[in-house]
Amino acid sequence: MSEKIILFDSTLRDGAQAEGISFSVEDKIRVLETLDRVGIDIIEAGNPGSNPKDIDFFERVKDIELKHSKLCAFGSTRRSGIGVEDDTNLQAIIQADTPAVAIFGKAWPFHITEIIKTTLDENLAMVEDTMAFLKANGKAVTFDAEHFFDGYKMDPAYAVEVLKAAERGGAECAALCDTNGGTLPMEIMEIVKHVASEVDIAVGIHCHNDSGLGVANSIMAVQAGARQVQGTFLGYGERCGNANLSSIIPNLQLKLGYDCLSPESMEKLTSSAIRIAEISNYVLSGREPFVGKSAFAHKGGMHIDAVLKAPTSFEHIPPESVGNQRRILMSEVAGRSTIIQLINEIDPSLTKKSEETTRVMDKIKELEYQGYQFEGAESSIKLLIRKELGKYRPFFQIEDFKTIGEKPVEGRALSASAVVKVNVEGQSEINAAEGDGPVNALDKALRKALEVFYPKIKEVRLTDFKVRVIDKGATASKVRVLIESTDGEDIWTNVGVSTDVIEASLIALIDSIEYKLLNDMERKLKEFKFI
Amino acid sequence: MSEKIILFDSTLRDGAQAEGISFSVEDKIRVLETLDRVGIDIIEAGNPGSNPKDIDFFERVKDIELKHSKLCAFGSTRRSGIGVEDDTNLQAIIQADTPAVAIFGKAWPFHITEIIKTTLDENLAMVEDTMAFLKANGKAVTFDAEHFFDGYKMDPAYAVEVLKAAERGGAECAALCDTNGGTLPMEIMEIVKHVASEVDIAVGIHCHNDSGLGVANSIMAVQAGARQVQGTFLGYGERCGNANLSSIIPNLQLKLGYDCLSPESMEKLTSSAIRIAEISNYVLSGREPFVGKSAFAHKGGMHIDAVLKAPTSFEHIPPESVGNQRRILMSEVAGRSTIIQLINEIDPSLTKKSEETTRVMDKIKELEYQGYQFEGAESSIKLLIRKELGKYRPFFQIEDFKTIGEKPVEGRALSASAVVKVNVEGQSEINAAEGDGPVNALDKALRKALEVFYPKIKEVRLTDFKVRVIDKGATASKVRVLIESTDGEDIWTNVGVSTDVIEASLIALIDSIEYKLLNDMERKLKEFKFI
Repeated sequence: MSEKIILFDSTLRDGAQAEGISFSVEDKIRVLETLDRVGIDIIEAGNPGSNPKDIDFFERVKDIELKHSKLCAFGSTRRSGIGVEDDTNLQAIIQADTPAVAIFGKAWPFHITEIIKTTLDENLAMVEDTMAFLKANGKAVTFDAEHFFDGYKMDPAYAVEVLKAAERGGAECAALCDTNGGTLPMEIMEIVKHVASEVDIAVGIHCHNDSGLGVANSIMAVQAGARQVQGTFLGYGERCGNANLSSIIPNLQLKLGYDCLSPESMEKLTSSAIRIAEISNYVLSGREPFVGKSAFAHKGGMHIDAVLKAPTSFEHIPPESVGNQRRILMSEVAGRSTIIQLINEIDPSLTKKSEETTRVMDKIKELEYQGYQFEGAESSIKLLIRKELGKYRPFFQIEDFKTIGEKPVEGRALSASAVVKVNVEGQSEINAAEGDGPVNALDKALRKALEVFYPKIKEVRLTDFKVRVIDKGATASKVRVLIESTDGEDIWTNVGVSTDVIEASLIALIDSIEYKLLNDMERKLKEFKFI
Repeated sequence: MSEKIILFDSTLRDGAQAEGISFSVEDKIRVLETLDRVGIDIIEAGNPGSNPKDIDFFERVKDIELKHSKLCAFGSTRRSGIGVEDDTNLQAIIQADTPAVAIFGKAWPFHITEIIKTTLDENLAMVEDTMAFLKANGKAVTFDAEHFFDGYKMDPAYAVEVLKAAERGGAECAALCDTNGGTLPMEIMEIVKHVASEVDIAVGIHCHNDSGLGVANSIMAVQAGARQVQGTFLGYGERCGNANLSSIIPNLQLKLGYDCLSPESMEKLTSSAIRIAEISNYVLSGREPFVGKSAFAHKGGMHIDAVLKAPTSFEHIPPESVGNQRRILMSEVAGRSTIIQLINEIDPSLTKKSEETTRVMDKIKELEYQGYQFEGAESSIKLLIRKELGKYRPFFQIEDFKTIGEKPVEGRALSASAVVKVNVEGQSEINAAEGDGPVNALDKALRKALEVFYPKIKEVRLTDFKVRVIDKGATASKVRVLIESTDGEDIWTNVGVSTDVIEASLIALIDSIEYKLLNDMERKLKEFKFI
C-alpha cells in the first residue's frame, strides 16, 4: 500500500499575492473547482484576518459542495500578550467557517525577540494556544513554521520545541517553511529527516523557488519523511514563486510510488494546468515540465524508429499518464513521412528528394520556428503545400480595405469601422462594419462581404486572438498575430506577421477563412467520392 | 582554495534547437560575446557535421578573440565499422577549428545493439578512437555519455567501461547525460558518487528539466564529485529545456563555495540574462530565480523594519551579488511611507488615514497588479497623485483623432496615416503623419502637433513597445500596451489598457508625454528654487 501524500495548494492565497495575478471572486471559484476536480486535498483560499475581501469570498463559497478538497483559511498565531479569544484575526478565521485552517508562527529566536518583540516562551504559548483554540472549534489545523530551516540552523533545539508546541496544541501537521527559498536539497533532506524523528506529528514541507529548487526540495523532504506538500498548482507566488505542485505530483507518484492522486485525476493534470493558467491570465509556458505543450515535443533529427522502439529514451514518462501528448514537429525527420504523403496526394510525381519537397519542408520549418503548430492541422499543411506547389487558386482576393479608428465619444459604443472590398471570380463585393477596434471591425466586414459568396463562413467563430511583438523597434516592431477559429466541428490556428498589427491580423483572418473553405470543399469531394 | 567548476554552455547548440528560438549569425555572435564576457568556460556553438549552417558560423567566428571562453564544436563518435579518418562528420569538426570539442556516444547496451546496431565492443572502440583522433588533432575533448543514468541502471559495469574508453582515448572530461530528464536527485547523487570513484577522468553533468529538477540534479552532481556542469544560460533547450546555468552558478558559488565566476562576473549575471533573452526574443520571466525582475520584489504586508533588520529573512542572497536589485512594491506597507511623503509634497494636509490617501494607494495597487512598475518612477507616481487629488491640469487635450489603415500597395512604403487634433490652453493644432501602421502613425502625428507648443517633446524617443492581450474574447479582447520612453536623461514606462489596441497605445503615449512635460516643469521649478 503506497503512502498517501497530502497535497496542499495555496494558489488562492500565496499565489494570489504574485505580481500580475488578480483574481476576481468568480476566478477564485473556478480555480477552486478545478483544484477540487483534480483531487487536491487542502485548498488554502485566503487570509480573512488581514484581507477583508477574503471574508466575502469564504462567505460566498459556503454553498459550494466540494467533492474532494477541504477548504482552508490562513492566518497567524494569536498576538503576543493577549488571550486567543481576544484575537480579532482568529475570530475572522472562525467566521470563515472552513473545515481546515493553516496557522503560521515563528520558529527563529531572532525574529521572536527582535521583530515580534516577545519572549521565546510566550511564542511557544502563542503556538500551542492557537492550535488548541482552533481544534476546540472543530478545525483540522496545519501549523506553518516560518523560516524553519534558517531557524533550525541557528537553534535546532528551539525550532523543534516550536513544533512540539504545535503538536501539544492538537495540530494535525507541522509544515516546515523555507520562507526565503534559499535552502539546498541536501540540507532539506537532513533537517527533515532529523525533525521527523524528533516529533510524532505529521511533517509537511513548504518551499519557494528562489533558488530554482522548489520542486527538488519538496521531493527530497518527502523522501526524508514529510507527508504533506504545500505549493501552488503552477508555481505562482511572490518573488520566484512557490513549489510547483504540477511538477511535484507526477514525480512523487509516477516515479517514487507515493499516492497523490487517483490515476484518472493524474490524467487530468495537463487540462487542469491549462485551465488554471487561463483563469489566471498567464501564459502556460510550453516548456513547463509534464504539462507544457512542448514537454513531449520531439526534434533534433531523431529517428521515429528510436521513439517507437525505445520511447523511454526520449520520454521519461508516458505523456498520456498526465493527460499530455507526444508532439512530433512536422519539420523534423519524424514528421517528414507524413508531409510526403500529403504532398503525394496533391502531386504524385514528387519524391523525398524533389526540390519542391525541400521547399515545402523549409517553409514548414520556418513557420514552426515562428510558433505555428501543424501537428493535427493537416488542412493547414495542405493549404501550404498547394500554395508552395502553385496548385492553389485563392477562394477570394482582397481588392482594398480601409480601417478607421476614431476617438471614442460619449454614446457611441464602437470606435472603429472598416470597409472591405473582395473579389470572387471576377465579382466584387464591398461591405462595412463597426467594431471595438480596427481589427474587430475588419474581421466583421470581411466576413459580411464573403458570406454573399460563401454562406458557410457564418459558422466560423474566433476563439482566441494573441498578439505578440517579435522584433523590437518601438512602435514599428514586427507583430505576430495568432488566431484560433472553430466552426463547431474543427479547431484550427492561423498566423500572420507584419510590422502592422492590422495587416498581421488580416493575414491570419484570410488564412483562417481559406482553411475553412478548403476544408468544406474537401468534405464535399469526399461525400461525392472524388477523393 | 575553492574548487573550480567548469561551466559549459550549449545555448548556441542545444538551446538553438528549442521551439521558438531562431538565431541569425549575428545573434549567435552576440550571445557568444555575452557568454564570454560573463566568464563561461566552454561555449558549445554548433554541430558542423550535421548542420551545414554551423560550418559557416565557425568560419565566421575564427577572427573573434574570446577573452575567456573556449569555443566548442559538437558531434558524434565515429560511425561503426569505419576508421576515424573516414568519418565525414569528424572531418567537419576538425574543419571548424575550435579549441574544444564535445563528442556524444552511447552508454546503454539496448541503444547500441537495437538502434545503432553494432556490438558493445565496437562501441567502446568508437569512443576511444574518436577521443584519440581529436586529441591528436590538438583538441580538448569532452565525452558526453548519452542516456547515462538509464544505461547505468540497466548495466552499471558497461556504462563505466564506456567512460574508461573515453579516458583511455584522452578525453579531459566525461559528462554524464540525463538525456530524457527523468532522473531524480538522490539517484544522480548516488550514481555520480559511484562513477567518480571508479574513474580518474574528470566527471561532468548534463541535465534536462523534464521533471523540473535540472538545477537540483546539477548541484547534487557537483556535490557528488562532478567538476563540469553543462547547461544553457537561461535553460533553453528542447522539451522542457536544459539545466539552467544562471540558477546553478549562484547556488554553487554563493552557497556552496565553489569557484565558478569571478565576483565581478557574478555581478554581471542579471544583465547577461537580460541580454541573452533579448537576443533570443524571449521574455525573461519576472519569476526567474536570481535574475528575474521579481526575484527580490517584496510584498505581502511585510514591514520595512524586518527587511532592513534581517534582510536574509526575505532575501536568500544579497541581490547585488548577482547584479539584481531589491524592489519594494509601492502599494505595500514598505512603500507607503514613500507615497505619503510624495502626497504631502503636493497636499500637506493629508495623512496616512485620509480618504484621498487610500484612494491613491488603491489606484497604485491596481496599476501594479496590471504590471505597471512605479519603483524608481517617482514622476509617474506624482502624476498619478495629482490626478487622483484633482491637482492636475493636463498639458494638452486630444480633441479628435483618426487613423486610417490601408491595404499596402506596390511602391508605397507606409500603409497607414493618422490625423490628430490637439488643444493646448484653448489653442487647437492639427497635424498628420504616415507610419508603418496606425499606432506608429498616431505616435508621429501626436508629437508633430504637440511640438508646436512644447518643443522639448522632440527629445523623447520610444525604446520599447509591448502589446499583451489580457482578457480573452477573440478580436474584442482587452489589450495592454506598455511603452518605454527616454529623453536621454530619464527612462520611464507607461501603460494603457483598452479593448482597442490603438486606444490602449494612445493612452500610454499620452501618459508618456505628460510625464515628460511634468518632469521638465519640475526641473525648471527646482532651478528657480520654487521647490
